[in-house]
Amino acid sequence: MSNAFNWNIRVYYEDTDAGGIVYYANYLKFLERARTEWLRHAGVGQYELAQTHAVMFVVSNINLNYHLPAKLDDELTITVGIKRLGRASVEFAQQAWRGETLLVSGSVMVACVGVKTIRPYPIPAQIMKKIKDTI
Amino acid sequence: MSNAFNWNIRVYYEDTDAGGIVYYANYLKFLERARTEWLRHAGVGQYELAQTHAVMFVVSNINLNYHLPAKLDDELTITVGIKRLGRASVEFAQQAWRGETLLVSGSVMVACVGVKTIRPYPIPAQIMKKIKDTI
Amino acid sequence: MSNAFNWNIRVYYEDTDAGGIVYYANYLKFLERARTEWLRHAGVGQYELAQTHAVMFVVSNINLNYHLPAKLDDELTITVGIKRLGRASVEFAQQAWRGETLLVSGSVMVACVGVKTIRPYPIPAQIMKKIKDTI
Amino acid sequence: MSNAFNWNIRVYYEDTDAGGIVYYANYLKFLERARTEWLRHAGVGQYELAQTHAVMFVVSNINLNYHLPAKLDDELTITVGIKRLGRASVEFAQQAWRGETLLVSGSVMVACVGVKTIRPYPIPAQIMKKIKDTI
Repeated sequence: MSNAFNWNIRVYYEDTDAGGIVYYANYLKFLERARTEWLRHAGVGQYELAQTHAVMFVVSNINLNYHLPAKLDDELTITVGIKRLGRASVEFAQQAWRGETLLVSGSVMVACVGVKTIRPYPIPAQIMKKIKDTI
Repeated sequence: MSNAFNWNIRVYYEDTDAGGIVYYANYLKFLERARTEWLRHAGVGQYELAQTHAVMFVVSNINLNYHLPAKLDDELTITVGIKRLGRASVEFAQQAWRGETLLVSGSVMVACVGVKTIRPYPIPAQIMKKIKDTI
Repeated sequence: MSNAFNWNIRVYYEDTDAGGIVYYANYLKFLERARTEWLRHAGVGQYELAQTHAVMFVVSNINLNYHLPAKLDDELTITVGIKRLGRASVEFAQQAWRGETLLVSGSVMVACVGVKTIRPYPIPAQIMKKIKDTI
Repeated sequence: MSNAFNWNIRVYYEDTDAGGIVYYANYLKFLERARTEWLRHAGVGQYELAQTHAVMFVVSNINLNYHLPAKLDDELTITVGIKRLGRASVEFAQQAWRGETLLVSGSVMVACVGVKTIRPYPIPAQIMKKIKDTI
């Protein structure tokens, strides 16, 4: 549906574990940094989103395959593709690459929710427009 | 295939984010703490596993649904069930509950790998026996 | 000024880094878990504190010495002692031990602040009383 | 002793907590990212350092003042200055700024240790030279 957006990540000690590789939960941070930068690229800041529109995006499903491990000092490229854009949700296809090597791939479903209720809420029209303009 | 093993987790500030709820990546830490304690309950420590058998368990796939958010000070129960026990992998069914409320559920596939190669390696017989004795 | 309160912590993969030891920032999580449990022991929950009194505790200074590293699967005891109790702040003396071995020690200054302003605010009388009753 | 090296950091959801501000332990990650990039700027990669010289840098003391909080989406500048360069240690002065506003400041003492022993070890001459060339 869209060309991918890319975001580069450097692996620091904080990201690794005693196995000498990036700890599996930390890829979720990398994936979210890339989604956040994709959204910022579309002109939407999340702090402002919460303050102005009283909504935020929360993850409702993740399905990830870990193919190969990343190590300290690696430079990774995280891709952000949109699989499906719904009224109150966005389904992303995301991957983590080290050069030509695919390390992690999968899908992340994100729901728009009210900041107080944390229940599904339609993506505000103004935000939806900005998202559609990027894909 | 097995009765679930349970492990209780308290939510601290470190686990939450500016949305006022537990950050989605941090459930992966909770799930792993519970798997680690299940393994310890079976008589297997992971530090010793790496030192003595030169293998470790790494996650190869996660598929998680986030139903409802946890908040600061919540006490959660993480369940560990075994869906499938392979020669070099274990597939877990895991859930996070707050009392009677299901917050997160899904499956986690874990592979046994050599600590140096980080490539699949059969679960050592002695470890396999301990695991089988618990399920 | 007070007898120490103790809280036990288990070291998981999430806490370690590629150096094979606990990552230095993660001791701050351990120290805070112990302070949180000390406060809970005094009858004060932090979620309730924010909701009911509109204040929270934030750290204003840390001074820590890292003597020896902790490793995967270590069981640590975190101590919480009170050095000074002010109108709007608490100074803690804290240590991390593995058995008889001191790993980390130092002081942590915590300030009471308004949840909206994040500016110093006197510790509510009801909370102060509970704290004083424990020391 | 030296002009400061600067490194920019963006605040993501992962960095914040339910207080709506950056969690205090996470500044230690920011400070280390900046030290790592300073070291890389001097031509020293930490993965290579461990592999080639069998040493790594570990923190032995931190003394930090938290002046004002950072929030989601903030862009921070982390400074790295060298206060003292010893045979087997480096003392850094570091600060976190948001524009002209100082948020966190303090000192971080880092020791060179053997990767196996985790005991003090002189900084290898080749590395020392690269460090001296940058300050």
